[in-house]
Order: sequence, then C-alpha cells, then structure tokens
Amino acid sequence: MYTTIDFQTLAEQLKTAGTRRRVAVARPGDEHTKEVIMRSLQEGLADFLLVADEQSREAADGIMNISPRHVTVFYEKDDVATARKAVSLVKSGDADVLMKGTLNTDVLLRAVLDKENGIMEKGSVLSHITAAEIPAYKKLLLFSDAAVIPRPTTEQFEAIIRYTTDVFRKISNGIPNVALIHCTEKTSEKFTHTISYAEIMKRAGENAYGNISVGGPMDVKTACDAESGKIKGISSPVAGNADILIFPNIEAGNVFYKTITVFGNALTAGMLCGTTAPVVVASRADSSESKFSSLILACATADKK
Amino acid sequence: MYTTIDFQTLAEQLKTAGTRRRVAVARPGDEHTKEVIMRSLQEGLADFLLVADEQSREAADGIMNISPRHVTVFYEKDDVATARKAVSLVKSGDADVLMKGTLNTDVLLRAVLDKENGIMEKGSVLSHITAAEIPAYKKLLLFSDAAVIPRPTTEQFEAIIRYTTDVFRKISNGIPNVALIHCTEKTSEKFTHTISYAEIMKRAGENAYGNISVGGPMDVKTACDAESGKIKGISSPVAGNADILIFPNIEAGNVFYKTITVFGNALTAGMLCGTTAPVVVASRADSSESKFSSLILACATADKK
Repeated sequence: MYTTIDFQTLAEQLKTAGTRRRVAVARPGDEHTKEVIMRSLQEGLADFLLVADEQSREAADGIMNISPRHVTVFYEKDDVATARKAVSLVKSGDADVLMKGTLNTDVLLRAVLDKENGIMEKGSVLSHITAAEIPAYKKLLLFSDAAVIPRPTTEQFEAIIRYTTDVFRKISNGIPNVALIHCTEKTSEKFTHTISYAEIMKRAGENAYGNISVGGPMDVKTACDAESGKIKGISSPVAGNADILIFPNIEAGNVFYKTITVFGNALTAGMLCGTTAPVVVASRADSSESKFSSLILACATADKK
Repeated sequence: MYTTIDFQTLAEQLKTAGTRRRVAVARPGDEHTKEVIMRSLQEGLADFLLVADEQSREAADGIMNISPRHVTVFYEKDDVATARKAVSLVKSGDADVLMKGTLNTDVLLRAVLDKENGIMEKGSVLSHITAAEIPAYKKLLLFSDAAVIPRPTTEQFEAIIRYTTDVFRKISNGIPNVALIHCTEKTSEKFTHTISYAEIMKRAGENAYGNISVGGPMDVKTACDAESGKIKGISSPVAGNADILIFPNIEAGNVFYKTITVFGNALTAGMLCGTTAPVVVASRADSSESKFSSLILACATADKK
C-alpha cells in the first residue's frame, strides 16, 4: 500500500532533489566524522559548517581545502565553545542539521538544551529516534527511545509518537503502524507504561494523533512477525506489520538497538528530535556506515530553514 | 578454551548417555505438545508421564498406544487437577522434569508455587532462563529473565546468576562470562539495577559466586561484539565474549528474546528454574522446534531423582 525506503534510496533522492542541507558540525576531529563528511561531499549530499577548536583545526581545514565551495570553517577556543557556535548556526537559520564530532555528548546537549541560546522546540522534550534497515524485515523500522528518555511518561510517549510519525511521513507514505511494546498483551498497574499505553490507545481512537494505527501492548514478535499475531488471535493492523516500535523504557529500547545490530546485521541511523533541527550524535562504537546513514536520515527529514 | 554445545549435540549426548529423563506433562492436548512428545519418544530421549483430563485424554491415550513402554497416563478431572498431579509426580521423585501442555501458565504456576504441595526449592525464587543458538554468535547464549521477574532486586539478580551459571556448567565447561546488561557503562542512582550490579561486581570480586567472570554495566553490543568493547577501551574478559546475559528488567529481557527470534533467526529453549526440577512452559507462539529444544535443555540440566 505504501513505499518505504532504504538509506540508499534516501541518499539518491536527496541528491536528485538538489536541496543540499547545511550541516553544522561541532569539533570534526576524528577519522569517522571526517570520513562521513568527505563521503557526503563526494556524493553531493550536503554542505558543511565546521566549528573547530585548536585540536580539530587541522582536520577541518583539510576538509575545507578539498571542497572549499561547500565547506566553511569557524574557529572557537575549546569544545564547549564549538558546541555553542554549532548550535547558534542552527538557531540563526544558517544550518539545517546539527552534528556531533569528537565531543562529549553531554557538552553538545547542554548547548542544545540551553534555555536562552539552545534549539529546543517550544514545550517539547528531547528524544532519540532510530531507523533500521534489517535484512530479515520487509521495510525500514523506526523505533524510540533507545538513548535519551529513561522512563517515558504518558506525555513523553505522546511526544515520541509525534516525532516518529513525523519522520515516517517524511520518508514514506501511507498510514504508519505504531506498536506499543511490552512483554505481553496485558495492561497492568504493575507496569505503569501499560497504563500509559491504554490512555494512548483511547486517545488514538479519538483521533488525537492524526491518521495513524496504534496497537499494544504487544511484544516485538507480535509487532513484527505476522504468524505470531495470528496464533495469538490478535487482529490489530499493527500486528506483524509495524513501522514504528515504541519501547517502554530506555533499557528495552537500547537492547533492541544493539541486538538488531549485532545479531540481525542491521544498518541503523539515529538522531535526536524535539529540537528545531535534527541532531546527529553517533556514538564511538557506531560503524561509519551507520554514521553516514544517520546523516542521510537527518538531512532527509530536516526542514530547509 | 571450552566447549559450548548446540541443541543437536545436547540431544545426541542425552541419547548416548541412555539416562532417559522422566517428564511429567500436564494436559498434553495440543498438536505442538504432542509433536514434541512423539519426537522425543522416537529419538529415545525421555519417558513421559502424561496427566490428562477429559479433553486431553484421547491425545494422551494415543501417545501411550504408540509407545506403551515409555509412556504412562494418569487421569484427572480438570486442568487444575492435572497441574497438581503433574507437580506431585515431580515432588514424589517419579518425574525429573515438568512440562506444560494445553494449560494456562498461571494454573501450572499456582501448583508449582504451592507452599505445601509445590516444588519450589527452599528459599529460592522462581525465574526463567532462555538458551539461544544464534547464527551470528559463536556459541550458545544463556539469558535471564525474559518472562517471570519484572524488576529483580539484588538478591534476585544473585539467584538469577546462580541459576544461569548452574545451567552453563551442566552443558559447557570453562568459566562462564556473565554480562550485566544496561544501556551504558555508567552506574547511576537513577537506574537502581546498576546499583545492584555494582554490589554484585564487588561480591564477585570476593568470590561469592564461585569461579565466574562478571562484567558490567555494559550494553548488548559490548557484551557480544569484541570490536565494540575494544573501541570503548573496556578490558573485561566478558566484553565481546559473553556466555550469559543478565537483563535489568523483564521488558528488556523479553525484547532480546523476541528480537533474536524474529530478526536473528535464533533457535531458543526456555525453562523455569528455582524449582526442584526444570519446568518447561513454552508459549503458544513458540515454534515446535523451540518447544523441542526447551525439552532437551530441561532434560540435559535435570538431576536424576
């Protein structure tokens, strides 16, 4: 009924659309970050605003010398200053995407979350979205939150649903199937997230989240394997056909993220949302393929300022 | 340094050892249970004590007629009575393994947990262990708890470590590498299980759990992918080489269980422990291959009464 898309196709669409997004990078010192930037430049996917301190200056200048038309370098005194400057470039509308280089994530997040100079959307909550290409699944799978919110409240679950369905609509068409993940189908006071899920199911029925299908509580197998839903007699359109998995807590989300990577040969892309522009904060252990996919996802879902 | 074993090899060892375990089955009515029993009989792996009520009588008699030397049938009036009788057969030493047929798990558990007539080990806690053959992993991986204890306390984590390492020792040799799973390497008051982990790491250093290696908090990737631990500079012998994963909560454990099955093509075997004999409680959505593996694991780790 609808097209989902892989990262390769996303990259090609970005290229042919010709709307190069402008990416502000805080402290682009390490090899992985450099590799991702060079590849994006070669493929004509984005322009870069590199914010360097003394230690990342050589790397930044090196990149600019190779592609001076598409790279600008700014110089700041230390890591904290690079984070603030990169954030300010997004705030001023000079950049469409923010990307972390060799920087402690906390340092970047402090600048992002800053009440006065940060880039949080009004009234929103910071959250993390991952998109995964898993060989054993028929389409791109979005999930959240594997990295930021430890135990979402009902309101935070609603924000997460809004963020993930927004991303879905930018890269797919059709009605997103959202699965609310738990270990059984039971709603129970013992598991407060299932109480949130019940509230969300009720509100989804009242059309509170626009045109989406929501199902749950259900486990990962019921959400992604049609056979399992049938055996259990679950008739939800989400069962066996999920586009988006909402996890009850950060441990469960993180386990999913790491397990599909290690045992499912998945290629993942991650970014932060709740901000006025997507923020790419790949971690040290991510492959450079995964970091490149994250940048593609961020550029494909960013609004042109 | 040591041999781990797959389910196929375990089955062959059981066969050649010739010590057929005796399995009490409560209400063996459904096709899957029947299939598993028939296959075990054909391969000469176990003897069966089938406890049937009116609705499962025909199935039980059918199995007995095919293999009268290795099958005994008991008749009870309803599902609750079949559960009690099957448990009593374990308690009296007539059976080495307990297996659930077509029965609500709660009904069987009530009989298992019964203070007077149940089969809990003294002072122990009921928990669930899964063993997984994952094509992308080099050895059998044990993990817990994906099905019973929602949020283990420090004491319950210690019981889970004892159960999983006991099972490991029965089917492998060498020192088990136990990974305490979290989403980062940080110990934090915000995540009470990481406080338990710190206590466990300390006690492991004092040799409280025998000859085992424990590492954590660490994520699934660090535990099972050698490259990731190296990048993060983690020197634990557990990193990249885990035999056992201990999950912080039931949601995370269950997500791992379902994810390796759906996306990692894993074959899993599960059983309950903390009881005087292993209890097989496969769920409706498990494949019959998985149910058969569960029975093999239970028989291979059961003590002969």
